[in-house]
This record gives sequence, structure tokens and C-alpha cells, in this order.
Amino acid sequence: LKKVNLILSGGDGSRLWPLSTPEKPKQFLQIFEDKSLFGHTLDRNLDLVDEFFVVTNHDQWNLAKPQLEQREVGNYSYFLEPCARNTAPAIAIACMQLDPSDLVLVSPSDHMIEGSGYTTAVNKAFELAKEGAIVTFGIQPTEPQTGYGYIQANGSEVVSFHEKPEHQKAIEFITAKNYYWNSGMFAFKAGVFLEELEKYNTELFQLLRKLDLTTITREDFEKLPNISVDYAVMEHTAKLKMVAGNFDWTDLGSFESLFGYWEMHPEKAPHAYKAIGGGSYAYSDNPPKILVNNPMYFIDANGTQLLVEKGLGQEVKNIKR
Amino acid sequence: LKKVNLILSGGDGSRLWPLSTPEKPKQFLQIFEDKSLFGHTLDRNLDLVDEFFVVTNHDQWNLAKPQLEQREVGNYSYFLEPCARNTAPAIAIACMQLDPSDLVLVSPSDHMIEGSGYTTAVNKAFELAKEGAIVTFGIQPTEPQTGYGYIQANGSEVVSFHEKPEHQKAIEFITAKNYYWNSGMFAFKAGVFLEELEKYNTELFQLLRKLDLTTITREDFEKLPNISVDYAVMEHTAKLKMVAGNFDWTDLGSFESLFGYWEMHPEKAPHAYKAIGGGSYAYSDNPPKILVNNPMYFIDANGTQLLVEKGLGQEVKNIKR
Repeated sequence: LKKVNLILSGGDGSRLWPLSTPEKPKQFLQIFEDKSLFGHTLDRNLDLVDEFFVVTNHDQWNLAKPQLEQREVGNYSYFLEPCARNTAPAIAIACMQLDPSDLVLVSPSDHMIEGSGYTTAVNKAFELAKEGAIVTFGIQPTEPQTGYGYIQANGSEVVSFHEKPEHQKAIEFITAKNYYWNSGMFAFKAGVFLEELEKYNTELFQLLRKLDLTTITREDFEKLPNISVDYAVMEHTAKLKMVAGNFDWTDLGSFESLFGYWEMHPEKAPHAYKAIGGGSYAYSDNPPKILVNNPMYFIDANGTQLLVEKGLGQEVKNIKR
Repeated sequence: LKKVNLILSGGDGSRLWPLSTPEKPKQFLQIFEDKSLFGHTLDRNLDLVDEFFVVTNHDQWNLAKPQLEQREVGNYSYFLEPCARNTAPAIAIACMQLDPSDLVLVSPSDHMIEGSGYTTAVNKAFELAKEGAIVTFGIQPTEPQTGYGYIQANGSEVVSFHEKPEHQKAIEFITAKNYYWNSGMFAFKAGVFLEELEKYNTELFQLLRKLDLTTITREDFEKLPNISVDYAVMEHTAKLKMVAGNFDWTDLGSFESLFGYWEMHPEKAPHAYKAIGGGSYAYSDNPPKILVNNPMYFIDANGTQLLVEKGLGQEVKNIKR
């Protein structure tokens, strides 16, 4: 059975602005060992799959293609979305262009994963997928993160999904020990996924079947439901299994997690990363002197300077640009 | 009797760094109606006195002299200190070069004063000085400032001096109503001041009498006691009177008072002053976006950026440059 890594690259990383911009989103910034997260994603999966399939948009494809070429990944395919429609349409479109028996590993392109447990988890997921399961990867939490969704599991059986929790709820999850971070990674046979999509979101499935994806316009694409794969399939399918990932994982989805990552791995941080005292950090060639009671993040990038108090990182996406 | 405005310009404004630098200290920054505080000091006193006497240092004199020339102030004298020795030596040196009967108005060069009450207060102080008093100016406080010293008074009689108080103490002072901010402005006859200095700080007086001030070296000047006029004379002399100043006064001695002044008088603020939301303010052509819980001051000047939480402004002088 052919193994395909389906890489999703659509996010604009608005919570890391102005470091991340719509023109150069998070997954293409060379701020992790001088390599981008997109590049890390390719390198991580190169030996685990036979082919790559990238779902992205026109602008990001110009950044993604050189990374595929540079690595001589062999066969790869791609689909360029005329506009963003969340993960369910993106995954379904890819699956429709694959053989139903193909084993698909869905990878967001903007996460950081480390540790040998990753290979073990992916191979275990492929085994379950071969048997017809739809596999989601749950990550053993290391802290009561409020920026991630959670999966309650009982062994490999998924009990329930939970949205990003309040802090108190997150602490309960951690304490209970059978809650996992929802990583947004999946594995399944392309055909199994489409069967389940047809069953649980017939509208999206029918719409996609009718479309000629080689000539689709933005106008038609915008008519597709804007829906995540969790809502469309994962929260309904009886074929769901969870593989507990025993590896380091972060979505680097806020300045807290980005600076936290650099702090833990200074050797992988870019030269602009600097500790500026008092628990504050800067991403700036010329960081400010600071005199504050609460830790701060100072970011000077792309012509804009941003100052964020630690703990408010999730709000960055709401700042008026 | 000749009236002389003795202007003291020695401070390096280290609490306003990096806006204020040793090369261009606070009193020479054109950030108040495009005029410097030194210029404001001259303009304020031009019609109240006959002559000016400036005690400063070599570098600052290069900044001060053009301002005197530009205003055609007429006669002026100056003494350039080889190094800073606080206010007592500076005032004494000037008095020794004046006629004992000259009426001296001592003005720090880096305060902002507004309101017609100023002229009234100065004229009242000159009247008392004519009669042999040493006059200090107390300012009716408008808030429990912890950055100023206080004078306890009973009418024009000074009861006691108080160092910069803790917040709780400052509130008590305000509530008691007979405590005044110690402005650092004085009026007296030059000869009376020197008599009192001889009485209460004989060492300094004798040292100065022996020196040839026209040829004094830095080495000799450094041997002078580094002492304020408050400690040397004001806290001891029986000739002390206080004039209560009924005018707006600020020493602009911290970012809180500087930004507070600009906030109250936006028409007098420089173009780089900007409100950046959330009670935060910037002095920067390119202020940062901010996402913080506590008000901040952001200063971008002279190649350095500084970030100060409101309330910590008094600590700026301790930041490692």
C-alpha cells in the first residue's frame, strides 16, 4: 500500500504577527535551526512515506515548492486552494485524487515535533489505518495548555473531543491523565475517509464530487462549507482510534510557546532571539532595555514592533494591524 | 539692588535616559513647545532680574551659551565646573563672584513652571531676601509624589525638611496640608548666603576662599565636599523663610512626570509623543503595537529603546547602559 503524507499549509499564523505575516506565514519562517517548520515537516516524514501531497494556496506554493525540490522528495502532488475553507475540504480534495487504498498521513505544516517516539507512533497509526481505522494522534500533555483542544481517550478508544479549555478545566484534564492534546494529525485510508465523510457530511462530499477541481474558480470554492475535519468527520465516525504520541510536540501557536521553545532549545533559536532580563524576551536585532514587573515579549519584525505581556499571546490575532 | 538669576545646569537627567543623555541632558532637549527647559528658564526670568549667572560644565556650556546669546539677555556670567559637586559648591562659587548685596534667585534649569503665580512668588521672595532672609520656594502639592522632597511649614516659617517619602507618608503629607514640595529654588542676598555657609559648613567655605577659581583643576575641584545646599545651609540657617508658590511646577524628573506633562499639555508635546493605548505612551517616531495589562512607557531615542512600566520610572537611573 502506498503511503502519502498529506501536508496542510494554509494558516497565516496571525498569532505570531508581525513575525509571521500573510506573505510569509509561520511555517515558512527559517527560525528553527535555520530551517522552516514546513522543511521540518518534510524531513520528519521523508523516510516514513512514499509520496507527498500538499494542499496550500498560490502564494504559499511559491515558498513550499522549492523546499520539495531541494529535498528531491520524488513524486509529489499538490492542490492550490483559491481561498481557505478549513481542513475538511482540503483533506477531502486530496483523498479524491488518491487511490482509495492509499494510506494517508495528515500533517499540519506548522508544528514542531521531536523525539524518536514520532516514528513509532506513525507506524502504529498506519497499522491501524490498514485495518480500516481513522486514526487521530493525541499528545500526552506536559502542562495545562489553554491553547490546544483535548481528546479524552480510553486506551486507543476516543471518548470525547474538547475545545480549548479555560485554565481551571485544563488543570482538571491534566490531573485526569487520560486527556491528550489534539494534534491535528491523522492517518487513514483515503477511501475510508471519503466513505465516512459521505456518511457524516453528505453536503460537502456531494459538492466536491460535482466540482472539476482543475478549473475551479474562487467563487465556486467559496461555496464549500468552511468546516474542520474534526467537526465534519472525527467527532462522528465510529472508526476513530487514537494513537498516543510519546514525543515532544508544540504547535508554536503563540509567542508563549514560540519563546518557550527557543528558551528550551537556545541552540535552535535564531540570532534575533534574546533574553532581555526579568523573564522577558525579544525577537529583535536591537532589543530594548526593559524595566517591567511582568515578563514581556518584544518582537521587531517586518517593519513593526510589538510588545506583548506574557499570558496575552492568544490575543495577538485581534490586534489592529 | 541688582537682581541676578543663578541658573544651575549640571544634572545629566539619568532618569530620562535614553531621551536624556550626558551629551544632551534633559534641560537642553527641545521637547516642550520646541523649546528647551533651559530656554524656558531664561524666558521665565528675563523680566524679573537684571543679570544671569550660569553654573554648568564645559559640555553643557556649549549648549547653554547660544540660548543666552539668542535672547540678548545682556550681561551674563558663568562658571564651568570641572566636575559635578552638587549644589552647595555651585551656589557658593557664584555668590563669591557677585556683590554681597546682590539679590540672587537660584533656579534649577530643568524644571517646568507655569502660571502667573510665579512672578508674584519671586517678587515676594526678593522682598524677604532684601530684609536678610534666605528664601526657599515650597510648591503646594497636587498629588502624593514620592519623587520630591517636602518642606513642612507654618506660614512662611519652615518647620522641617523631609526626604522623598514612601507612598503612605506622601499621602499623610498631602492630607496635613502644610507640607510643600521642595522646589530647589531659592532667593537671598549673596553675602547673606555666604555668611550662613561659613557658619554651617566652614570647611566648604574655607576651601572655596582659598581656591583660585579661574585656574582650578579637576583634581582640586574633586576635593570639594559633594553636598547639597539643603544639607549645607537650608536645614541649619535661622534666616530661612518659605514662600508658598501658587503655580504649576514639575521637575520632569521621571517618565511618569514627563509623559504626564505631555498628556496634560498635548499641544506642547513633541511629534514623537504618542498615546499607544491601554494607558501606555511612547516617545518614538515608530511606536510599537502593544498588548499589555499595565501601562507602559516606550522610549526610542539616541539609538536605544527603553520600555518602562508606569510606576518604575524612578529606577531608570539604575539601568545598565
